[in-house]
Amino acid sequence: MIPSDLERRILEAKQKGFVPFLVSATAGTTVYGAFDPLLAVADICKKYKIWMHVDAAWGGGLLMSRKHKWKLSGVERANSVTWNPHKMMGVPLQCSALLVREEGLMQNCNQMHASYLFQQDKHYDLSYDTGDKALQCGRHVDVFKLWLMWRAKGTTGFEAHVDKCLELAEYLYNIIKNREGYEMVFDGKPQHTNVCFWYIPPSLRTLEDNEERMSRLSKVAPVIKARMMEYGTTMVSYQPLGDKVNFFRMVISNPAATHQDIDFLIEEIERLGQDL
Amino acid sequence: MIPSDLERRILEAKQKGFVPFLVSATAGTTVYGAFDPLLAVADICKKYKIWMHVDAAWGGGLLMSRKHKWKLSGVERANSVTWNPHKMMGVPLQCSALLVREEGLMQNCNQMHASYLFQQDKHYDLSYDTGDKALQCGRHVDVFKLWLMWRAKGTTGFEAHVDKCLELAEYLYNIIKNREGYEMVFDGKPQHTNVCFWYIPPSLRTLEDNEERMSRLSKVAPVIKARMMEYGTTMVSYQPLGDKVNFFRMVISNPAATHQDIDFLIEEIERLGQDL
Repeated sequence: MIPSDLERRILEAKQKGFVPFLVSATAGTTVYGAFDPLLAVADICKKYKIWMHVDAAWGGGLLMSRKHKWKLSGVERANSVTWNPHKMMGVPLQCSALLVREEGLMQNCNQMHASYLFQQDKHYDLSYDTGDKALQCGRHVDVFKLWLMWRAKGTTGFEAHVDKCLELAEYLYNIIKNREGYEMVFDGKPQHTNVCFWYIPPSLRTLEDNEERMSRLSKVAPVIKARMMEYGTTMVSYQPLGDKVNFFRMVISNPAATHQDIDFLIEEIERLGQDL
Repeated sequence: MIPSDLERRILEAKQKGFVPFLVSATAGTTVYGAFDPLLAVADICKKYKIWMHVDAAWGGGLLMSRKHKWKLSGVERANSVTWNPHKMMGVPLQCSALLVREEGLMQNCNQMHASYLFQQDKHYDLSYDTGDKALQCGRHVDVFKLWLMWRAKGTTGFEAHVDKCLELAEYLYNIIKNREGYEMVFDGKPQHTNVCFWYIPPSLRTLEDNEERMSRLSKVAPVIKARMMEYGTTMVSYQPLGDKVNFFRMVISNPAATHQDIDFLIEEIERLGQDL
């Protein structure tokens, strides 16, 4: 999200008579792991009195790390934040949080006052009846998994988890950024653990950068991925994005992975893709 | 739901220029465990071309029982049905199904074609990518719990489960319907396992049926429930409904319960409530 572009579009919408009411910024996009500039977005939202939401489903875990949490600077000014501890933080599926700044808002939006469920004459503290402020009624207590993990690992444990994953991503990035047969999809170091790259088989390395090369390159990642699955050795996502043809997106969320695992991944891609 | 009343209201709405588009019938209401007359509702929905939804969250499990499934006759004509195997059928929270008659409808309503998630060039059968037809994307495979239970217990196992629970409810009903100190909330045998009743302590039994008695009776169930929780012996829900003051709603969903447990429940209510 480019702040100046955001502001331009807000003004454009207002001129047309629309009322922009929500900006949804992202902290950790799915494919690139990119972080929107939340401080600048917060300034614009404040200026135009617009609700600021931050989708930190994937990136929120970085708040556990003193080294990386600056990437979310400004999230503290959001009106609402989504955060999926089941992504970066390794809580078993599913564990998703929606955090809202205004106290009582969830209650006011969702409460149905079902008198057959939320009796007011119970003999215990009614504030424990959280059902009436949620979207769902009967549901699994997913947050208990996070609570247990947090008790067991501590904040420093989660910090080590996050730092290790980002260190592994940087290790991969540093190896392939200058290695023959690789092209990075975006410039610079990944902000999250998403390392996006093309593997260029030898037969494509001398081709001109034209449509035919793109068409052939788009078929490389799916074939390597299929072979990975058949051999059962590794699993790496791939996808196209915008005008960029299929590229690999290596995402690391398991802190038990090692440098040797990353080395193996690179060798495996080359072993499975060299004949393409 | 009274079919003639439903039809009257549909006509009324049409006369006002509205377009009624959905009837939501219930198979097993939360408090009474009552079943709407689905066949008659289906006829009306067909006549007026209205979407028929059946909320069988609680009552759907009765379809497992040859003895009780007639209570859901007509559900097969619904356009959509909700069913929570985590209620009657004892699947651990949460396990909720939404069944829709029209093939492809969920896909058409929910698919986002996110090319970075649902690539069309995968090397396996894409029909296994069910994510694009669901409301949620990343989520727990709740239905696996039901599948495992079904494999383990079989349909006859679920049938025995359901039949046993309903038999226990009938046992409770038969004991208290004529017992001193009890009043049933609705006439006749419960349709599901919901047995709804007031316990009338000795001090209230000779009172006239007036507002003061109602007011005192409304406080009986909460006090007994509180004492149950303090003693840790039993747990029975209570709630008011419409003009009916707080009454007990005993719901049986555990087929391991016995007649002795039911006998104990009755004795416990009387022990804890006799001084009120």
